[in-house]
Amino acid sequence: MAKFLLFPSSIRIHSRFCTASRPFLPIPSPKLSPLRRNLSFKTKTMSVLSESPNEKKKKYSKVAAESTGSIPAAELLGVVELAAKAGAEVVMEAVDKPRNINYKGATDLVTDTDKMSESVILEVVKNNFKDHLILGEEGGIIGDTSSDYLWCIDPLDGTTNFAHGYPSFAVSVGVLFCGKPAAASVVEFVGGPMCWNTRTFSASSRGGAFCNGQKIHVSQTNQVERSLLVTGFGYEHDDAWTTNIELFKEFTHISRGVRRLGAAAVDMSHVALGIVEAYWEYRLKPWDMAAGVLIVEEAGGTVTCMDGGSFSVFDRSVLVSNGLVHNQLLEKISPATEDLKTKGIDFSMWFKPENYVTDL
Amino acid sequence: MAKFLLFPSSIRIHSRFCTASRPFLPIPSPKLSPLRRNLSFKTKTMSVLSESPNEKKKKYSKVAAESTGSIPAAELLGVVELAAKAGAEVVMEAVDKPRNINYKGATDLVTDTDKMSESVILEVVKNNFKDHLILGEEGGIIGDTSSDYLWCIDPLDGTTNFAHGYPSFAVSVGVLFCGKPAAASVVEFVGGPMCWNTRTFSASSRGGAFCNGQKIHVSQTNQVERSLLVTGFGYEHDDAWTTNIELFKEFTHISRGVRRLGAAAVDMSHVALGIVEAYWEYRLKPWDMAAGVLIVEEAGGTVTCMDGGSFSVFDRSVLVSNGLVHNQLLEKISPATEDLKTKGIDFSMWFKPENYVTDL
Repeated sequence: MAKFLLFPSSIRIHSRFCTASRPFLPIPSPKLSPLRRNLSFKTKTMSVLSESPNEKKKKYSKVAAESTGSIPAAELLGVVELAAKAGAEVVMEAVDKPRNINYKGATDLVTDTDKMSESVILEVVKNNFKDHLILGEEGGIIGDTSSDYLWCIDPLDGTTNFAHGYPSFAVSVGVLFCGKPAAASVVEFVGGPMCWNTRTFSASSRGGAFCNGQKIHVSQTNQVERSLLVTGFGYEHDDAWTTNIELFKEFTHISRGVRRLGAAAVDMSHVALGIVEAYWEYRLKPWDMAAGVLIVEEAGGTVTCMDGGSFSVFDRSVLVSNGLVHNQLLEKISPATEDLKTKGIDFSMWFKPENYVTDL
Repeated sequence: MAKFLLFPSSIRIHSRFCTASRPFLPIPSPKLSPLRRNLSFKTKTMSVLSESPNEKKKKYSKVAAESTGSIPAAELLGVVELAAKAGAEVVMEAVDKPRNINYKGATDLVTDTDKMSESVILEVVKNNFKDHLILGEEGGIIGDTSSDYLWCIDPLDGTTNFAHGYPSFAVSVGVLFCGKPAAASVVEFVGGPMCWNTRTFSASSRGGAFCNGQKIHVSQTNQVERSLLVTGFGYEHDDAWTTNIELFKEFTHISRGVRRLGAAAVDMSHVALGIVEAYWEYRLKPWDMAAGVLIVEEAGGTVTCMDGGSFSVFDRSVLVSNGLVHNQLLEKISPATEDLKTKGIDFSMWFKPENYVTDL
């Protein structure tokens, strides 16, 4: 099992399949002063082309990979879907059974199902692509770090909901090509006791997004006042958590409502499905986001960090929206996030495998 | 169409079917001083028998009627279920269709479906019990105010979710006997686009609670720290709204999480189903609560106002729980609610039909 670094220490340059390779931007050390850390992040490109308030959709950097590399998109997506389905079958068998719950932290539940789901997903990936790199929530990083492909696996996103039998939760599988999402599948568990069911979201780079095989698109709502929103609160109750409680309050006040459902992959898939206009959260991990952000973007939506800067799955915050309300949301979310930076809150990249080469 | 009063002005005494009839406690006028209003409410009975911290379940007043009166429970419940099912069929036909949305208030949606659902529910009730009194969210109060039976109908609870195609929402039908819930049915819409489904909750006084025909029971979790909770925020953003944002923050901090789903009848049914431990909200109306509170109580749960006082469906706040965490929740919720009273926030009964005689 290879190591992964919270802060990448070295970047190997190669360009076998990657469309472009360049060194990382300077990554702030956790010991840098708040001011320095803030400055470091201002170097990130925010591709807003115009500030005109009348412009409905500004242009943000795309998060998807340019291609799926040497593996045809259909083949890669096929394995992603197979892997997610394998995990989901394990989860479905367990939804109505008594749970064996262990603890990691005050409210973080990990179940046997979580581990079994990851195990069968890994089996599918390794059976099909034995040299690919894999980053799982449970098992950390395994595989060949010289691979262009990095699989980001959340075998059970929304474990608290799962532990309570409360919908929704999901199995989320996304694969990166040179650091950017190339194919994704999220199997959402809906309904709950007496009527469990699943809904499968999938997307590939430049190939569109689908739900149960039907093409999906984000909503056309262009005002926050008419938007239904959703957010999440992580296990760590730090300054970012407090800031998001304030954002929850502000947007509950001005929008149609802010939902709090408890599974990032599900919430993002709901944006792609057009039933909510936007979702944001601090402190997410690559396995929480890799699939969801691609599904949103391929459904026509927009993905950035919560400061409005360009997003990678190794970032620590995400704002996904239908694109039409993105700027309006950032008017409140971005300054709040900048304030966190000035307080020294760490927004540097994390969980990026050492030596994994990217186009970021 | 008869009138209903926000503050009952006269109480007619009769005892044809009611197990007991007594005058209302003094109802504070909206012009009373905050102090007087507070004192008035302290006259409400809070049946906490012991303050021992080791006692797991204190005894609170039951909200259910002693009986279903002259109508057998099975007959009354049968009509309640038939009515809710009729409304649900209207809603199911509309879930994937474009919506014609009207506005009442900034974020309050009322759809044609809402009105059509109420219409078919009323038809079922009137065809079976033509002399019963009916209180509908859309149509106000109709029928004979001398009836012992008051039907409280929410033809589409969670209209914002419905308008966005976001689960969950519900059809909620509850019938009171002498002011107390006697029979209830909630049809919850789950899943969302590509996989809509329904789940039906029902209960009758002293007859237990059921989901899709199977007996259900609240959860056995006895610590807030291990609880999943849910709350709601109404359309009016007053002091009570601000207080509940604070409660949301406090309980998000100390519990496994606070969900925000957006339909009171659904949230209460989820407590009865045992997938969340408790739900609370200010500013609910009788049609939001009449069915849900009975389903919770018949599933073994506890129902009070948010000050801990005894609850009627004409009260303006509700806390439902599995009973085991009720006291722990009230340790924070009750003082916050008492503070609102001292600020002059109105917690008097509302939407009680004029002349409707009760056992309250």
